[in-house]
Amino acid sequence: MKTSAYMKTYAKKDFPVSQIRQLLEPGPVVLVSSAWKGKYNIMTMGWHTVIEFSPSLVGCVIADDNVSFEMIRKSRECVINVATADLVDEVVGIGNCSGGEVDKFERFRLTPVAGTRVAAPLIRECFANLECRIADVRLVKVYNFFILEVLQAHVAIAPKYPRTLHYRGKGIFITSGPAVNKRQKFTKWKNTSNF
Amino acid sequence: MKTSAYMKTYAKKDFPVSQIRQLLEPGPVVLVSSAWKGKYNIMTMGWHTVIEFSPSLVGCVIADDNVSFEMIRKSRECVINVATADLVDEVVGIGNCSGGEVDKFERFRLTPVAGTRVAAPLIRECFANLECRIADVRLVKVYNFFILEVLQAHVAIAPKYPRTLHYRGKGIFITSGPAVNKRQKFTKWKNTSNF
Repeated sequence: MKTSAYMKTYAKKDFPVSQIRQLLEPGPVVLVSSAWKGKYNIMTMGWHTVIEFSPSLVGCVIADDNVSFEMIRKSRECVINVATADLVDEVVGIGNCSGGEVDKFERFRLTPVAGTRVAAPLIRECFANLECRIADVRLVKVYNFFILEVLQAHVAIAPKYPRTLHYRGKGIFITSGPAVNKRQKFTKWKNTSNF
Repeated sequence: MKTSAYMKTYAKKDFPVSQIRQLLEPGPVVLVSSAWKGKYNIMTMGWHTVIEFSPSLVGCVIADDNVSFEMIRKSRECVINVATADLVDEVVGIGNCSGGEVDKFERFRLTPVAGTRVAAPLIRECFANLECRIADVRLVKVYNFFILEVLQAHVAIAPKYPRTLHYRGKGIFITSGPAVNKRQKFTKWKNTSNF
């Protein structure tokens, strides 16, 4: 496996899984990595939402014409990797080729790293890696909608607010801009960890 | 009802419901308006995802301790309103008071506008208004997760890329930044309307 000398890597720390809304609620495009029968794959994903803090649940659509669909359904595991804007060409490239034909880790010079809770590989060059197990498949047949539980989260120590990619369709991404702090105006949830 | 002379309003056009991913997939905080028994209400919502192009389906979590939960469940309708960054104080204020105690349209000087397909009011000061009907309640009891069908969409003619708010929790919003056009690198979906 080639190393990706030109790409950024991050020092990461364990991160509380009940707080991963900080990463996913803003709506970034993510890369989903999976493993099945000795093969790895990666897909891009834009249709996801946080569903619960604890257990840490994420709902997402994985179209059944993706190679990843069967790999994730059979292994019951995957990793959600939050990519930053410097990886835009990798994100687009990964979404525009098939894991049935290419080894995407090799083609895009990304580095698979072993997780602690799942066999699916983490992507080293991503800002955050969320190790997930399938928690609910009730809506898979109807909508390709999976509910995943985040078992373990690894998040870069810095920067605090990564520049992420947010897809609009038709090849257009919005990048994340400045943060606005309105903490003083929150009353309802001030005494919980969930506000 | 007071008019909100100091707030921006938008000239809007009908927008194809199969394309509303352009508005929701980037992950903005939205305001959800509802009507029941002669009363209106508004809530803030950050946990939503596109689920299907056609029919146009959106999945979202509406916590059952919100007044809006029962109003939407009973009326089976609501409007998803996409707010822009200039409305950040209204967004925070709406999320930090209860519709059981205040008329949020009046308190925040927002203007209810009649929709064409649902009884729930559109919010005039928002960039986009998506009239929705409940399409699937299978996961409401378990996760407060509703699947809505967008029946009609009204979207501002300009700007093309609104500055939206993306919530991270703990009172911090990320605002949307510049767009990046990678259309030329898309191959897989070039011949469909869905890429």
